[in-house]
Amino acid sequence: MAAIQLTFPDGNVKEYDAGVKPIDVANGISKSLAKKSVSAKLDGHYVGMNDEIPASGQFELITTDDAESLDILRHSASHLMAQALKRIPKFANMHFGVGPYIENGFYYDTDNGAGNQVSVDDFPEIEAMMHKIVKENLPILSHEISREEALKTFANDPYKVELINDLPEGEKITVAVQGDHVELDKGGLVPSTGWIKHFKLISVAGAYWRGDSDNHMMQRIYGTAFWKAADLEADLQRRAEAKERDHRNIGRDLDLFFTSQEVGSGLPVWLPNGATIRRQVERYIVDKELNNDYLHVYTPVLSNLNLYKTSGHWDHYREDMFPPMDMGDGEYLELRPMNCPSHIMVYKHKPRSYRDLPMRVAELGMMHRYEKSGALTGLSRVREMTLNDGHTFVEPEKLEDEFKSILKMMMEVYEDFNITDYRFRLSYRDPKNTEKYFDDDEMWEKSQAQLKRAMDDLGVDYFEAEGEAAFYGPKLDVQTKTALGGEETLSTIQLDFLLPERFNLTYVGEDGKDNHRPVMLHRGIVGTMERFTAYLIEMYKGAFPTWLAPLQVEIIPVNLGAHGDYARKIQKQLQDAGLRAQVETKDAKMGYLIREAQTKKVPYTLVLGDEEMGQDNVTVRRYGQKATETISMVDFMKEIQADVARYSRVD
Amino acid sequence: MAAIQLTFPDGNVKEYDAGVKPIDVANGISKSLAKKSVSAKLDGHYVGMNDEIPASGQFELITTDDAESLDILRHSASHLMAQALKRIPKFANMHFGVGPYIENGFYYDTDNGAGNQVSVDDFPEIEAMMHKIVKENLPILSHEISREEALKTFANDPYKVELINDLPEGEKITVAVQGDHVELDKGGLVPSTGWIKHFKLISVAGAYWRGDSDNHMMQRIYGTAFWKAADLEADLQRRAEAKERDHRNIGRDLDLFFTSQEVGSGLPVWLPNGATIRRQVERYIVDKELNNDYLHVYTPVLSNLNLYKTSGHWDHYREDMFPPMDMGDGEYLELRPMNCPSHIMVYKHKPRSYRDLPMRVAELGMMHRYEKSGALTGLSRVREMTLNDGHTFVEPEKLEDEFKSILKMMMEVYEDFNITDYRFRLSYRDPKNTEKYFDDDEMWEKSQAQLKRAMDDLGVDYFEAEGEAAFYGPKLDVQTKTALGGEETLSTIQLDFLLPERFNLTYVGEDGKDNHRPVMLHRGIVGTMERFTAYLIEMYKGAFPTWLAPLQVEIIPVNLGAHGDYARKIQKQLQDAGLRAQVETKDAKMGYLIREAQTKKVPYTLVLGDEEMGQDNVTVRRYGQKATETISMVDFMKEIQADVARYSRVD
Repeated sequence: MAAIQLTFPDGNVKEYDAGVKPIDVANGISKSLAKKSVSAKLDGHYVGMNDEIPASGQFELITTDDAESLDILRHSASHLMAQALKRIPKFANMHFGVGPYIENGFYYDTDNGAGNQVSVDDFPEIEAMMHKIVKENLPILSHEISREEALKTFANDPYKVELINDLPEGEKITVAVQGDHVELDKGGLVPSTGWIKHFKLISVAGAYWRGDSDNHMMQRIYGTAFWKAADLEADLQRRAEAKERDHRNIGRDLDLFFTSQEVGSGLPVWLPNGATIRRQVERYIVDKELNNDYLHVYTPVLSNLNLYKTSGHWDHYREDMFPPMDMGDGEYLELRPMNCPSHIMVYKHKPRSYRDLPMRVAELGMMHRYEKSGALTGLSRVREMTLNDGHTFVEPEKLEDEFKSILKMMMEVYEDFNITDYRFRLSYRDPKNTEKYFDDDEMWEKSQAQLKRAMDDLGVDYFEAEGEAAFYGPKLDVQTKTALGGEETLSTIQLDFLLPERFNLTYVGEDGKDNHRPVMLHRGIVGTMERFTAYLIEMYKGAFPTWLAPLQVEIIPVNLGAHGDYARKIQKQLQDAGLRAQVETKDAKMGYLIREAQTKKVPYTLVLGDEEMGQDNVTVRRYGQKATETISMVDFMKEIQADVARYSRVD
Repeated sequence: MAAIQLTFPDGNVKEYDAGVKPIDVANGISKSLAKKSVSAKLDGHYVGMNDEIPASGQFELITTDDAESLDILRHSASHLMAQALKRIPKFANMHFGVGPYIENGFYYDTDNGAGNQVSVDDFPEIEAMMHKIVKENLPILSHEISREEALKTFANDPYKVELINDLPEGEKITVAVQGDHVELDKGGLVPSTGWIKHFKLISVAGAYWRGDSDNHMMQRIYGTAFWKAADLEADLQRRAEAKERDHRNIGRDLDLFFTSQEVGSGLPVWLPNGATIRRQVERYIVDKELNNDYLHVYTPVLSNLNLYKTSGHWDHYREDMFPPMDMGDGEYLELRPMNCPSHIMVYKHKPRSYRDLPMRVAELGMMHRYEKSGALTGLSRVREMTLNDGHTFVEPEKLEDEFKSILKMMMEVYEDFNITDYRFRLSYRDPKNTEKYFDDDEMWEKSQAQLKRAMDDLGVDYFEAEGEAAFYGPKLDVQTKTALGGEETLSTIQLDFLLPERFNLTYVGEDGKDNHRPVMLHRGIVGTMERFTAYLIEMYKGAFPTWLAPLQVEIIPVNLGAHGDYARKIQKQLQDAGLRAQVETKDAKMGYLIREAQTKKVPYTLVLGDEEMGQDNVTVRRYGQKATETISMVDFMKEIQADVARYSRVD
């Protein structure tokens, strides 16, 4: 048999006997390399460590040091899970769809027909079987088979048969074999089952075959795997933490909101507890803006479609917009996708002079996005949202001052909410693709420099991102961490030179001429009420600071008959001071009631018995603390009012 | 010629010679009757006083004592105006459409082609010419003409030609002649122009020919007329008052809101001043409701169409609803026409027990009505509105208590806004048409009695209206007077036995069974933000009480250089106390600035000069008062805070 030449990543070419396997190549270089080599690639296609290298070509070994190796491990773990399932009698006749690796692990879509459905309770048994197969250390080998052989092999697996039939004529079909288990597979697997040591099944959820809701609903079993036990452990902890923080779970447990198909996908209903938090946030930010000379307005959610034709939204953003509604007389109304055109109408309502500028228009502006139902999540991805929106119209030469004043307010707000885990991103246009942006080189150069100077002046840290600007101008984004470890933009300040042009905005300058063009700044401080509340829920893990807590004081009379009146008197004092207090009237043991108040994460629990009643005292227990303190009602009132007044600030 | 018999309203029959005229008949009865007879009717058709009575029949004279005579007077006045216009050279070639009487006067649609357009500046000249024709006392006579004659007579009047051509074949055509002026007319006119003494032209507006926007735009000239000078005077005063109070005018003058075709018909934009009033009202009513154990929520404006199919809105209210939007997967979203189904979803979110009831769900709920653009007016008739909505779910046996507690809150709110001009209407089903209502006799009898008993218990005045109930239950409406003298429903409490059925609402009773059905109460206290604000604007004539005033304190430094810092210090003190204050920096005379503050109806104007500055004093002028008072800033702060705290109440 003819020899083959393998070209290594460093350009070296070596010759090997035909039939050589990657494991041989690795061993030929070093034992330690062989030990950590997971798989190999020839001209970009996977070759298993124990499979023959079929031809000459560009060759590379993938080791556990390469990030890609984790995908290979997880891909292999999904096969391992399938093999284990088939060995468990109640899942022996299970059908399988696809089983890929994903960002944080893997899944396999399964269908056990009328048989037992998989539940998390089955996970220990399945995992035990997986560990058994790991111990067997079955070699994993791939080979090509004909379409006929493939159809015969998977004759009992209708989903696989469908996949095979969908392959184009002439397409190479390969299978991966580990013991008695055969997978339809393109490679990228570990050498043997013994390599898969640290794994865990995570969850099970419904999933339509091929993601199409017209198809059969399958069970998607999720898992994850790592090379090291410590990494798996850390990941599981992170998942537990994320789950504990997930605003959807906390939202359900604390009765904050719900979503349902009956009301409409992506259209959350804010229950009284969630609505209280939102109302506090809304009043806070509106008052803050009023104190900063913002002019608050209410503008309609429905508007003439022409507004969005003029603004350009209709041309560039149409797929995210709801269908226009015909009102007759040639009038079409549109659920607005953005508030900017409405605020521009406020600006345009009267002639403006430089004396009126900067003019800061703000609103809790409701808008709608025509999102597909698949993308919708709790409060964080919705179809209807209310944005803490603001638009400043400013003289170009005053841009820097205005930018600074917005940023200053933003940082004050962050302090009030004790938001500390964020970073500033200055987003510029891509200097290599200037034609992708609003065409005014001088404007870009000048305004980007202004933003940078403003940030430097204020002495805040930031990083610069070329190519992240909007079409219409550079911007500042505030990037925060989400509970799930991702990053999202919480606040933004965007310069806009385009809309003032499109709507022909002008003002009378100091020179008396009325043809001056203002610059517009789009800004959101706390973003949408929906996303911000989701963020707060996850940040505080549902244990809201007193000013935001739906219920601030839970009052528990030791004996409802004897101390009920006193409890109601205390409640009334608190309510008259604008606080949210409730008397517990349930007939239950004290210990149970106190634990329940902790579960509901109420900031203050007051226990009132004979001793307290006689002295006008209250016994206070703060959320998360075991200790209690008996103090006068006067002192407690001072304490809780000071607590509310400091917002979430850590003084 | 044969005699004719006339049958009088009292049944008497008299015989007259053929050719007799109503004036002869009247004179035959009494001179005084003849003097006040305006027109006559034979078998329901008008016969002019000086026209021959054509046949025997049911006969009646219409005198100035009959309400109908005012319509005849105004109808005649419109002809008089047309005749006057044609005598004025610049309007000599004017074309005329229709010229009817209307509720408060008359109008004529006119078209002067490319010639002079009529403006209010022309009114004195037109009125003078009308008075001249009155002096001429031209007899007004009617007679029948053929279609050919008619077309010849009006050959130069294309609108009249169109009207003639549209008459069915064989239809009798009559004209009314007064001197050289001929009108296509069916009668109902005074005997001569001398009868039309007390009239006034009111306004001119655009109007499409036949109300169709595809047709030519004409000029509609409005006027009014009365029998007595004093009545005309009173009417003109009422109109002036209404105009002065009209929320659209005040809204424009005080920059409260605007509407425009550009933003969309019926979609008002609340400018900062109007938005401040609305925000105050919103916070007031939300806090009031929270203090009354309402659970405030936010529910989506868009919802699944199925909700409105279940509720029955889709079947019975569809023409007022916006078109549903297809979201794929069989989901249709609808801009909600009402908030009740959303609040029902809140109720249904969890199983409820009698312990949870009454459950009071409230919201500032935005809803949309698919109104034709013709019906839209300012803030009072709009396509998008936010309702101070609330729904109580209550045990049937607790209905009366809940009704009382709502009514009590309602009356407190009225006191806070100093609303005194209203009356209560208890609306029952029509006992003669019980099949038009939700079918449960016992429920109707019992609940109507409950409402009545509650009203009696509370000792409030009310009137009862049979047949005014909703389909689903009896209700209480609060009827208030509008600036224009009309009546509208400001608040309402409606019992609903139907929706709990349709949505299958249940609760667990004291008996432990889960099949109890709650009753629902729909209630609105201040109604929609739009209509209530319109109402407040008109009630207060734009001079808002301090707690609602967009700007509460206008601070005028005597000399900006010398006293500006002191003015800003005072402003800051006020703002820190949550008050809305502004320092006037315009370079103008003191008198002008004070007058301007009065025009803007600012409750307090402070003038600050050397004297005030030295003593920490302010010189205060209250809106509408000439007198000023110099007091310490400490005292002023106390005064204005007490003023704000009392809302609009008159203590």
